[in-house]
Amino acid sequence: MSDSLLLVSIAVLGGTGKEGKGLAYRWAKAGYHVYIGSRDPAKAGNTAREISDMLGGEVSVEGFGNAEAAKKADIVILTVPYAAHKDTIESVKKDLQGKILVDVTVPLVPPKVATVQMPPDGSAAQEALAILGKGVEVCAAFQNISHEHLLDNADVDCDVLVTGTTKEARAEVLKLVRAAKLHGWDAGPIENSAVVEGLTSVLIGINKKYGSSHAGIKITGVDR
Amino acid sequence: MSDSLLLVSIAVLGGTGKEGKGLAYRWAKAGYHVYIGSRDPAKAGNTAREISDMLGGEVSVEGFGNAEAAKKADIVILTVPYAAHKDTIESVKKDLQGKILVDVTVPLVPPKVATVQMPPDGSAAQEALAILGKGVEVCAAFQNISHEHLLDNADVDCDVLVTGTTKEARAEVLKLVRAAKLHGWDAGPIENSAVVEGLTSVLIGINKKYGSSHAGIKITGVDR
Repeated sequence: MSDSLLLVSIAVLGGTGKEGKGLAYRWAKAGYHVYIGSRDPAKAGNTAREISDMLGGEVSVEGFGNAEAAKKADIVILTVPYAAHKDTIESVKKDLQGKILVDVTVPLVPPKVATVQMPPDGSAAQEALAILGKGVEVCAAFQNISHEHLLDNADVDCDVLVTGTTKEARAEVLKLVRAAKLHGWDAGPIENSAVVEGLTSVLIGINKKYGSSHAGIKITGVDR
Repeated sequence: MSDSLLLVSIAVLGGTGKEGKGLAYRWAKAGYHVYIGSRDPAKAGNTAREISDMLGGEVSVEGFGNAEAAKKADIVILTVPYAAHKDTIESVKKDLQGKILVDVTVPLVPPKVATVQMPPDGSAAQEALAILGKGVEVCAAFQNISHEHLLDNADVDCDVLVTGTTKEARAEVLKLVRAAKLHGWDAGPIENSAVVEGLTSVLIGINKKYGSSHAGIKITGVDR
């Protein structure tokens, strides 16, 4: 592995959910120290043990409450449902200062989840930034990845578009994308998050219309 | 060809530009009657003759002023720069009633063209709808297609996401996508236009960052 970040530790808040657990699994497998965060530390502990068992025990995964997990980690991934987005961010605000937050949240508004309906700040990631302030680098990524294939070792036929406040922060997140055996692209500034988050609604609509279950996207026309 | 719409006529407003001319070429080639529209009818006539010559003269392409082209056609495609978007739509408003307008416009705001900056209505297509009212079906499509390959017969390695006010209108536009030898997807309601228009800024940024010139996207995970 050319990325020399194996000592970086990663917290996955909401890591007991399907998407968070799948990402945590891939990073644990790649050798990262992973902290599963949950509102319920016992649940986080269970998920950590499950992942460890799946990987034969030779990995470093522990479970904590969200704030404790955020405090321990160098980079923090947020994979909670949109309804819990604001409260979770506020609850870990002080633990995120000086770090990178990677927001995986899609601001779906039921029942019309196939219709793009961005919040007033422009996107979930921009809402996070508005709460956290300039002491945190906020990136957004992984919203379009179907969780189904994260827990096996299959190739995921969907690229990861990474937006964020600085190109340095996006470059750090792209290392995590590669470590998860996914293909990522620098998709530009935080203002571009609405496109990547909104793409999830477009893909939900395509799944419904064309009878599929894991529509994704790939960038074409550029050397990989 | 299974689509029995060969008698539909298509106006391409701003059809002297690269994108419009490329689309007009493909539709003329497919047997559609095409009206090139421009603010300058003489320029439109020149482009029409060029396309006709490229196709050996056995096609139906004529040039007119924008309003005249819009009046004559069943479906109207709008491929003007964003700076001319509002004025052009207002100038053809009455000629569009009862028809489908396909908005190809991307609301780029120079100099930051790689940053998504949607207008207050949400997207260029929603701006068009706000001007035109409910008497016009507004769709948005073709924003992400690089013009370079439209004028040859190469496969275009980029899908077309079609948004629009009704699924019936989107289905009509998807026929035009197929006729242009492109692969299209129903990408949902007009509110989703911001994603597809904004994707253009993301692709411009990817071109710049990765040294490419025609980044595009493909939908994966769904049978074609």
